[in-house]
Amino acid sequence: MSAEAGASAASLPIALDAAGGDHGAPPNVEGAVLAARGGVRVLLVGDRVALHAELGKFQGSAGLPLEIVDAPDVVGMDEHATDVRGRSGASINVCTRLVKDGHAAAAVSMGHSGATMASALLTFGRIRGVERPAILTHMPARGGMTTLLDAGANADVKASYLVQWARLSTVYLKVLEGRDNPTVGLLSIGEEDHKGSALVLEAHALLRALHGNGINFHGNVEGRDIFLGTTDIVVTDGFTGNVVLKLAEGEARVMFGWIRDALNSGLKSRLGGLLVRTSLRGLADRLDPSTYGASILIGVRGLAFIGHGSADATAVKNALLRASRAHEGRLLPRLEAAFGEQGAVPAAAGE
Amino acid sequence: MSAEAGASAASLPIALDAAGGDHGAPPNVEGAVLAARGGVRVLLVGDRVALHAELGKFQGSAGLPLEIVDAPDVVGMDEHATDVRGRSGASINVCTRLVKDGHAAAAVSMGHSGATMASALLTFGRIRGVERPAILTHMPARGGMTTLLDAGANADVKASYLVQWARLSTVYLKVLEGRDNPTVGLLSIGEEDHKGSALVLEAHALLRALHGNGINFHGNVEGRDIFLGTTDIVVTDGFTGNVVLKLAEGEARVMFGWIRDALNSGLKSRLGGLLVRTSLRGLADRLDPSTYGASILIGVRGLAFIGHGSADATAVKNALLRASRAHEGRLLPRLEAAFGEQGAVPAAAGE
Repeated sequence: MSAEAGASAASLPIALDAAGGDHGAPPNVEGAVLAARGGVRVLLVGDRVALHAELGKFQGSAGLPLEIVDAPDVVGMDEHATDVRGRSGASINVCTRLVKDGHAAAAVSMGHSGATMASALLTFGRIRGVERPAILTHMPARGGMTTLLDAGANADVKASYLVQWARLSTVYLKVLEGRDNPTVGLLSIGEEDHKGSALVLEAHALLRALHGNGINFHGNVEGRDIFLGTTDIVVTDGFTGNVVLKLAEGEARVMFGWIRDALNSGLKSRLGGLLVRTSLRGLADRLDPSTYGASILIGVRGLAFIGHGSADATAVKNALLRASRAHEGRLLPRLEAAFGEQGAVPAAAGE
Repeated sequence: MSAEAGASAASLPIALDAAGGDHGAPPNVEGAVLAARGGVRVLLVGDRVALHAELGKFQGSAGLPLEIVDAPDVVGMDEHATDVRGRSGASINVCTRLVKDGHAAAAVSMGHSGATMASALLTFGRIRGVERPAILTHMPARGGMTTLLDAGANADVKASYLVQWARLSTVYLKVLEGRDNPTVGLLSIGEEDHKGSALVLEAHALLRALHGNGINFHGNVEGRDIFLGTTDIVVTDGFTGNVVLKLAEGEARVMFGWIRDALNSGLKSRLGGLLVRTSLRGLADRLDPSTYGASILIGVRGLAFIGHGSADATAVKNALLRASRAHEGRLLPRLEAAFGEQGAVPAAAGE
């Protein structure tokens, strides 16, 4: 891999779907202001009048690298993903079009996830050699975080998709997190090679054959390994991945509720609770999804980041910083090169 | 449903695979002593000499309803599930044979899960109308617990299996937990009917059609709903179910580690930690899998319970009590009746 990161990348702005998400413009605009103060150029895409009004609430915002791009339409959270088709005025479509036309480096949206995926796929197309894009997300783990994909873009998959996602995520972790040779685990129901579904057995054989050729394959991992941080990356189908993501969020939420209750039961616990509050808040922050801001839709020929509908300004800011780093690190050409190399070099040959 | 619970059921003993599990005889024998003190008759199956020696450690055990049944062989934790075939002297095979021959009410094992499943399936066969047995397990949830199946017996499934498991688990919760009309959720990646894998869409349609006919179908649920306790039962394939179970265990373990660390960081937290210790221990107990002791292999024509290899005496005791309750509640004939009724009444007709 000879691509040089950063230096020569033009400083294009990030296109933010400022109308998207459960709370509309406010957290988007505030997040953009925070990112802009950190030096990231942002295009705020949405209703011009509303965004101007929102932006006016921030003192000194006129001097920041922020621009408004008008988009009269928005795909509502209750619409179908396919409703994004043909709506050229919808904010998410304006964002992806800005990227496609070279006016923006990446599209970021806290709006309708399905619509964002559809818009990115329709506008950007796929990287050559990638059959389906996947949602790559991060989960808290002992010792840091585990990268999980697919977190929900593809409910039904083929073994070859999993292999492509292993390759894509390896490049992603190198560029975004500086990991040299990240390990890849295949999610299964037993560590032994012969355990798992028919899909997993097939993917296991393919990944084993490619070990060392752009993929550092560890072998099968189990559900517990995601939190134990056994491997840097865990690949799975989008059905299992989405269940995993939502289960983990639900468990953390319910466990924190139980802890709160436990610390409110009796005078002794209440007193102790006051003393440990700060430490436990630090733990809650560690589990907070806003740390990573957004997940990337990886495998499309353009940068697209998808966040939680409930994202706050911090999540929006972190998503914009992450998108900017992906662009500065030349993530897209490096992903394409990884597949170009794969195309030129047969699986049997070394890296 | 006219079957009367309890009264007429003969008080058969429970056959315990006393050689099975990571720690061999000690926790099995201690658990059996505890259960026997609670009035449950137990057959301790394993090496006669070793079990006699172990049992001798408990004062007054001679007066308890415990008997030793010799089994010279044991399927090791590192063997293959299929190694159970043809080994008539293996402790798990002796247990299932005792049940089959009417000498015991149920088989309970903390040993090799796959071997226990294989032994039960080979010896008991399947309930008529059930294509595949499933592992039914319990997970902690807000407001109590959620029943999950399949927890790992079938990595690849058909939609019809999920429907049969919904029916089996409904009867199980009625008999074992006294739930009148338990709700069934189908694990998916969106609550909307049209979301999910091809398998889930097919199962959804079948369950929807059977709603009210022995199945109280709630609709799709997501990963988070398992901990939120949205439905009494969650049905899924054995791949997803096993990932869910192990992820939940791993997350709880890692989160408790983080809480411990947080309570050890600095003087103030350490002092607070001492005060809240008791309350938090109560929470840990709530998440302890030994509460339920073991999971049932449901769908076979006999009662078989499968526990953690790492089970302690409490888990063994609870598994034996649970097995006894299943027998006293006439679980097996009631499961068979539920499928008999289904066979007689077409899906379209009412209950």
